[in-house]
Amino acid sequence: MEYRAPIADILLSLNHAGQMQAGIDQGIYADLADGFAQVILQEAGKFSESVLDPINHSGDRQGARLNGHEVTTADGWRPAYEKWVEGGWNGLSAPEAFGGQDLPRLLNSACLEMWSAANMAFTLCPVLGIGAIEALAAHGTPEIQQLYLPKLVSGEWTGTMNLTEPQAGSDLSQLRTRAVRAGDGTYKITGQKIYITYGEHDMTSNIVHLVLARLPDAPAGTRGISLFVVPKFLVNADGSTGARNDLYCAGIEHKMGIHASPTCTMIFGDKGGAVGYLIGEENRGLACMFTMMNNARLATALQGVGMADRATQHAVQYALGRKQGKAAGSQGSGPDPIIEHPDVRRNLLTMRTYTQAARAICYATAAAIDRAHRETDATARQQASERAALLTPLAKAFSSDIGNEVTSIGVQVHGGMGYMEETGAAQFMRDVRIVAIYEGTNGIQAIDLVQRKLGLGNGAAVAREIADMRASLQELRASNDASFGRTAVRLGEAVDAFERASHWLSAQLAASPATALAGATPYLRLFGLARGGVFLAAQALAAQTGALTDAGKDASKYVQDARFFAENLVIAASGLELSIVEGGAFAADSSSNLVN
Amino acid sequence: MEYRAPIADILLSLNHAGQMQAGIDQGIYADLADGFAQVILQEAGKFSESVLDPINHSGDRQGARLNGHEVTTADGWRPAYEKWVEGGWNGLSAPEAFGGQDLPRLLNSACLEMWSAANMAFTLCPVLGIGAIEALAAHGTPEIQQLYLPKLVSGEWTGTMNLTEPQAGSDLSQLRTRAVRAGDGTYKITGQKIYITYGEHDMTSNIVHLVLARLPDAPAGTRGISLFVVPKFLVNADGSTGARNDLYCAGIEHKMGIHASPTCTMIFGDKGGAVGYLIGEENRGLACMFTMMNNARLATALQGVGMADRATQHAVQYALGRKQGKAAGSQGSGPDPIIEHPDVRRNLLTMRTYTQAARAICYATAAAIDRAHRETDATARQQASERAALLTPLAKAFSSDIGNEVTSIGVQVHGGMGYMEETGAAQFMRDVRIVAIYEGTNGIQAIDLVQRKLGLGNGAAVAREIADMRASLQELRASNDASFGRTAVRLGEAVDAFERASHWLSAQLAASPATALAGATPYLRLFGLARGGVFLAAQALAAQTGALTDAGKDASKYVQDARFFAENLVIAASGLELSIVEGGAFAADSSSNLVN
Repeated sequence: MEYRAPIADILLSLNHAGQMQAGIDQGIYADLADGFAQVILQEAGKFSESVLDPINHSGDRQGARLNGHEVTTADGWRPAYEKWVEGGWNGLSAPEAFGGQDLPRLLNSACLEMWSAANMAFTLCPVLGIGAIEALAAHGTPEIQQLYLPKLVSGEWTGTMNLTEPQAGSDLSQLRTRAVRAGDGTYKITGQKIYITYGEHDMTSNIVHLVLARLPDAPAGTRGISLFVVPKFLVNADGSTGARNDLYCAGIEHKMGIHASPTCTMIFGDKGGAVGYLIGEENRGLACMFTMMNNARLATALQGVGMADRATQHAVQYALGRKQGKAAGSQGSGPDPIIEHPDVRRNLLTMRTYTQAARAICYATAAAIDRAHRETDATARQQASERAALLTPLAKAFSSDIGNEVTSIGVQVHGGMGYMEETGAAQFMRDVRIVAIYEGTNGIQAIDLVQRKLGLGNGAAVAREIADMRASLQELRASNDASFGRTAVRLGEAVDAFERASHWLSAQLAASPATALAGATPYLRLFGLARGGVFLAAQALAAQTGALTDAGKDASKYVQDARFFAENLVIAASGLELSIVEGGAFAADSSSNLVN
Repeated sequence: MEYRAPIADILLSLNHAGQMQAGIDQGIYADLADGFAQVILQEAGKFSESVLDPINHSGDRQGARLNGHEVTTADGWRPAYEKWVEGGWNGLSAPEAFGGQDLPRLLNSACLEMWSAANMAFTLCPVLGIGAIEALAAHGTPEIQQLYLPKLVSGEWTGTMNLTEPQAGSDLSQLRTRAVRAGDGTYKITGQKIYITYGEHDMTSNIVHLVLARLPDAPAGTRGISLFVVPKFLVNADGSTGARNDLYCAGIEHKMGIHASPTCTMIFGDKGGAVGYLIGEENRGLACMFTMMNNARLATALQGVGMADRATQHAVQYALGRKQGKAAGSQGSGPDPIIEHPDVRRNLLTMRTYTQAARAICYATAAAIDRAHRETDATARQQASERAALLTPLAKAFSSDIGNEVTSIGVQVHGGMGYMEETGAAQFMRDVRIVAIYEGTNGIQAIDLVQRKLGLGNGAAVAREIADMRASLQELRASNDASFGRTAVRLGEAVDAFERASHWLSAQLAASPATALAGATPYLRLFGLARGGVFLAAQALAAQTGALTDAGKDASKYVQDARFFAENLVIAASGLELSIVEGGAFAADSSSNLVN
């Protein structure tokens, strides 16, 4: 089954949850006006369908291969990357000063979703590069920027992020990679990094590594970490590449999925130290990384949405063609397509609506990031910034959980075929499984939400989100549209539950932090169900008016989606609230109870 | 991490949910008295730990390989199979008349769980053989039984089940494999079968295929299907093997998991017809298969439990050793083991308690199957038979869903390591993914539960289950034990919700079958949470008294488990009820809404 870019669904969500058209009218998305956004979406969709999708399955089967210290990417990877660079896609969100298009995060998010859906293993390479670009653009010296950024932005070189070490995954305070001042302004980097995505490959003439390391006199913990740029080939003052730097790929991981994305163990300084250049100030490397963290987390979230969407398309097509058994009330003589069986339809609607809810949350997050910079009013910028901070862990964890759940249901819809690799459904499930783990596990996202985001602006960020949801629900009730069934009731209950849980957790954070943290994961899920459900309902209302897109003709589909989501999935809210506010006794018990 | 057979947990569950000691006292499990069950468990556990576990991961990496039409199993498979036969494990549940031990299903279930946990890909071979043994024992002629059963029971030969064809998976009415009367009492079989587990391998000198096929004059649909035994090598009257039969393996599947279990495409009759021998009556083959279906479904459920348990052990061990970050309130100087973080502990307790709940349901199902034969009172036998019928789809679907969910959480607990195949956590997730699909997808189990089992004995089977749960809850309340927290409250609400949903669905089945079937999957889940939760609570109460096992010293662990499960997982009940009784509007909508 070929991937089809879901432009209509994406546009509706961009315009509703992402407030794109409102932003154009308001003037802050002037660069998207006059149908420009639609053109970009169509072209990015075509690129996904015609270049990335055709090599997705073969790339999984073949994988990236290591020979000595060289990585050979799967067949078709190099030509696809050439087309990627030729098409100018690499610089879509990069600074104009270095050759990028500096388009809004919102539009870029929709593109990232489609690219990831078509070929997550490929798209990871530019996604990591975007992080490197952002770090250099924000913290690099003008000289470093001029040497590296034009080629990173065009895609002539790729970039990587080197954070993790065997003993330091979630906990970067334990980093051991060393950086010693060389005396000429450069540094000698020595150490081992693991899980480096596209740390080595054959698609470009140079690879630019951003590496976290510790100076000899650095304070312990995360306040003693510095950030360096460490190129595979040293770069001369005229921009040409010179000698090979002292670093190499010592191995690539055998992973559950994204087989075509080489996950490298990188060794720095085996011959005395790799040459590195400081980015930002000494010992402030983690702050530099945090600049990028929100964007990286959003990119990860969009991988979850993209893979969930792709799995849904795949499953719907299969269910339309596969005939097994008679559906209740069927008039036909032979077996019916399995899509006619209510239980299969429940599966497909679960897939479709979870995906849409996660997409809406991601686009709202992207819009908040944009507005934190683009709003003309300082208060609006501040509130948008807080909203971006609040929604980012939600987008990351909810969307990647949904990616896992939806792709697994996709396997299920295929029956036995789903377990066979030739079908493709299994690959989606294997590929997306990493998304809930990297860029901060989903547990860490939930803890971030409770520990740092719940109290943003003394709780005002959460309160504004609740008020926004209630305003949408008021409109829904005012519509008096019976086709929504109990959508407003169930969503209202979920928002109320979310508000009570928020207050309870805020109080508990002071009284018994462990008990509060014990509720972090169900709290994030509750937030996602409420926020996503309200987006779907409001989007369906908007679709009915036809005001936002040409989706008006399909409005009943969006109403059905919103209703299904509220009546069948948001209904978990009351239980989640109980788990949060009454279920945390286990946090105080000894871990020894878990050991047999 | 090595697999450790969880004997204490298993014994508690056998004695409580499985009523093993009660059955011994009652005299119907006389064959398990005097510690015999414990001896078998210990030995089966040792076999799992020392023979099956050590080749589990290497078998996954190497897989089964096809050369021409021959399958070579992974290194270590043949010697392990030899030990399996030598140990007499193959005949544990087989009829004594043919060399088996005919031990109760209950004890065999505990062994199946451990073998599957240690090596699911290996254990599938004997599991399929048990199905063939049962079919022949129940429906074969004395001559066929004498020729085949002793060698199938000893394990000298293995057996397979050939049901699925490309167009006929869940819907066996569409079978096309043909059987023509040869005139000498035998039949010529022609056709293609897919997904045949261990359809070809190199571990035994013969393979005995049970094949569903259609006679030329057979009625259409499932009433025109006959069952045949079709050996790989023909069997002479003296039991020796003769000519190669007209069948071969045309390919093995590339699957998401259970790589070491060859999943074969079998071609019958390329040279004129494979020789087959009728089992049971012509056109009654499906009835013969249904004899085995309950047992096969229970075996599948136990794979879910075993893999979930194994993943839990693996994750707990990892979480004890992996140090990242400071836990809330930690006094230590360095990072803490991640098991000290409440969110990780939530994951581990979710894994542990889901596994225990599913195990209890499986053992209760096994006990019901035993009692349907062993009870001395006819009414008790009838009620046990109905209970087995009611609990089988629950055990199959709930346990395999739990297998999927728990193994995925296991990957999550490992963080980035979980995605790397060397860790093993990913293999558990890939291996168990098939369990929700084969032996009737979980959707089909849910439909079976609503369409056929809900009305058993005019609803008496469900009513007895509800009464049994209420009686346990009454004991729990009477204990007045504060350490159970809100366990009784949450479980009481879930049982009430289950009862209301049962009544609503019963009525709806007549009024609007599609709407009733739309609620099948959440109904099965609701049943599993209520039934599993009550078992855990009652088991914890029993453990506190120390009466059932020597688990008394760890009783607080079981209390904590029961409480966690009720307060954090059973709380989904109210939402599931809403989804069942109010969420089914989508069943009446057109499937076109799902097509973009």
